[in-house]
Amino acid sequence: MANSSKVIKCAGYRWSGINLREYKAEDAPFKDVTRQTLLGEGAGEEGLAFVTRYFEVAPGGYTTLEQHQHPHTVLVVRGSGTAVLGETSYEIGLLDCVYVAPDTIHQFRAAGREPLGFVCVVDRVRDRPTPILRPHA
Amino acid sequence: MANSSKVIKCAGYRWSGINLREYKAEDAPFKDVTRQTLLGEGAGEEGLAFVTRYFEVAPGGYTTLEQHQHPHTVLVVRGSGTAVLGETSYEIGLLDCVYVAPDTIHQFRAAGREPLGFVCVVDRVRDRPTPILRPHA
Repeated sequence: MANSSKVIKCAGYRWSGINLREYKAEDAPFKDVTRQTLLGEGAGEEGLAFVTRYFEVAPGGYTTLEQHQHPHTVLVVRGSGTAVLGETSYEIGLLDCVYVAPDTIHQFRAAGREPLGFVCVVDRVRDRPTPILRPHA
Repeated sequence: MANSSKVIKCAGYRWSGINLREYKAEDAPFKDVTRQTLLGEGAGEEGLAFVTRYFEVAPGGYTTLEQHQHPHTVLVVRGSGTAVLGETSYEIGLLDCVYVAPDTIHQFRAAGREPLGFVCVVDRVRDRPTPILRPHA
């Protein structure tokens, strides 16, 4: 097997050779979110049990309020904002870590001034999220 | 099941409630490395297929030169240094991503001026590293 070890250089929150993609194709409510899949879906990376994605939420934006069985881990690497976990909102900032346990309704919101960027790692094999429709707090 | 969702706050590269540990107990060559296990080993986190650890290498320090079957992913979150991947050394800096493919001999070295801090995610189920004994380049 070819050795697929590599360094993926980052400059300005963009990673070399990684496409900037739409957050979601689904018709679920979200605002101003982009996605870059950093690791876990490339050639030679099939052995990883997990996928590493970078999400960036523009000022005032938010991810889908959603729920799923698979757990999330999140590491904030840019800006600050709010993590909604069930009925509680937490302020999050640089290098704070978030654990979203199975079935927790959750959402990430950027503060007003700067983008909120976070690395989110999930199991490779996972269920699809269910959007939660409730009034935006 | 109790909801174990949480935010782990970070201040000065230390995470709230997380112990700072020795890098390794084994008698393998390394220098000035600490470890904090952020997620994947706590109560309620059993569902994660992976474990998230933060390693910090002091200026001039280095991790064990080693090899194992399980792949690594690394995200640099502090400082800069060098990733040795097989026979090649790569300069690494803030938010660079490293993929260490199975069986790649690898090592992380801090540059001389500041600590190198990186988040390393690995599969929960994995083989033990084998230290590689060769002259330090």
